[in-house]
Amino acid sequence: MRAFVFDAYGTLFDVYSVTALCDQLFPGNGTALAQMWRAKQLQYSVLRSLMDRYADFARVTEDALVYSAAALKVDLTAEKRSALMDAYMRLEAFPDVKPALRRLKSMGLRLAILSNGSPAMLQAAAKHAGIAELLADVISVDEVRVFKPSPRVYALASTHLHLPESEIGFVSSNNWDVNGAGAAGMTTFWIQRGSAEPQEALGHPATHVVQALTDLVAMIR
Amino acid sequence: MRAFVFDAYGTLFDVYSVTALCDQLFPGNGTALAQMWRAKQLQYSVLRSLMDRYADFARVTEDALVYSAAALKVDLTAEKRSALMDAYMRLEAFPDVKPALRRLKSMGLRLAILSNGSPAMLQAAAKHAGIAELLADVISVDEVRVFKPSPRVYALASTHLHLPESEIGFVSSNNWDVNGAGAAGMTTFWIQRGSAEPQEALGHPATHVVQALTDLVAMIR
Repeated sequence: MRAFVFDAYGTLFDVYSVTALCDQLFPGNGTALAQMWRAKQLQYSVLRSLMDRYADFARVTEDALVYSAAALKVDLTAEKRSALMDAYMRLEAFPDVKPALRRLKSMGLRLAILSNGSPAMLQAAAKHAGIAELLADVISVDEVRVFKPSPRVYALASTHLHLPESEIGFVSSNNWDVNGAGAAGMTTFWIQRGSAEPQEALGHPATHVVQALTDLVAMIR
Repeated sequence: MRAFVFDAYGTLFDVYSVTALCDQLFPGNGTALAQMWRAKQLQYSVLRSLMDRYADFARVTEDALVYSAAALKVDLTAEKRSALMDAYMRLEAFPDVKPALRRLKSMGLRLAILSNGSPAMLQAAAKHAGIAELLADVISVDEVRVFKPSPRVYALASTHLHLPESEIGFVSSNNWDVNGAGAAGMTTFWIQRGSAEPQEALGHPATHVVQALTDLVAMIR
C-alpha cells in the first residue's frame, strides 16, 4: 500500500456538525432536518447521475436542503438557507482525522481525498480542518460529472496519483461507498466508528473493517 | 394522449400490503421492517445501476430484506424470508386501480406497466390484482439491465407501444420516478393519494398532479 484515498463527507468531515445550527435556526427540528438533508443529498446525487442530469455537489446539497425544509414544513428564509450552506463549507473534522493523517504521511504514504464534493467545497473543508497540507491531492467527481458509486469516479484515484490500483487503499465510513470502490476493484477499508449498522448487501463488502482512522497506522506497520 | 404507462410498485401495487405479514412474523417490528425494506430496495436498485452491477429486482428486493432484518436485529429464518418474498408476488392493488384502468381502456387508451420489477414479479402481481387483461404490455427494465430513473428505461415505452413519446402519459406515485420520466421528455402525472410530501427538487416536477388514478379519466375527457 503506497497511498490512501479518503472519502470526505461522513469519513473525514462530520456532516452532522451542522445539527446545532439547524436546531438554533429551527428549534426542535434540528436533528430531523440535519438527517433528512444528508439522506436527500445522497439520494439526489445518485438519482441525478442515473438521470444523466449531473449538477455539482453544492447545488445538490442546496436542493436537498430546500426539499427537507419543505418536507418538515419549516420556513427556510434566504438568510437561513445561506447560513446553513456556509456552515457546510466549515464542517468539523472527526477527532481521529488529523492524528491519523499526520502519522500515515510521516510513514511515507501519499494521502488524497476522493469525494462527491465540488472542488471549492472540498478545498474550504480541508483548509478549515487544518489538513490541507497533509494531502497530496483533492480529487472531485466534478471532473467526470457523475457521482459515486460510478466506477468512473474510483478510476480517478489511480490516474491522479500515478499508481496502480493495487497500491491504493480506499477508506470510507459510508458502506455503500466501500461497496462501490470494491466493485471498481479497489482494496477497501470501512471505518465503523462504533456504528452498529451491518454492511450493505451490494456484493462488495469491505476488505478490512476498522473502528477509527488511527487503526490504519497499526495495520500498515 | 393515446396511451398511459404506469409505474407498478407504490403506484398500482401497495408495497406496504406486506406490513401485516411482517408484523405477524416479527411482532412489534412490522412497520419498521416494511419501511426499511422498501427504502433499501429503491436505494439498492439505483446504487447497483450506477455501479454497473445490475441484478434483477427479485434479487435486489431479497438483498434489501436481508439487510433490513440484520439492521433491525430480527432473525430472518429461511422460512420467513421465503414467506415474505412470496408475499411480494401477491401485493394488493390500490382500490382506485381497477376502476380507473377499466374506464381508461374503455375510452380507447392503451395501458401498460413500465417498472423496475422483473417480468415474473410483474406478471404475478398483475394477475393477482386482476388487471392483466386490461394491459396492452408489461414492460420491465430487465430488458435494458438498468433501473429507473435511467433515460434508457423510459425510452422503452415508446418503442414497445410504437407511439411517439408525445402521445404517451407516464403515471407514478413516486415523485423521483416522475422527475426521471420528465427528464427523459415524457408528459408526467403524479398520483399524490393524499401524501403531504413536496415534489423532489430534481428539476423535472410533474406536468400534472392528481389525487387518484380515477382522476385521469375526467382529465382525459
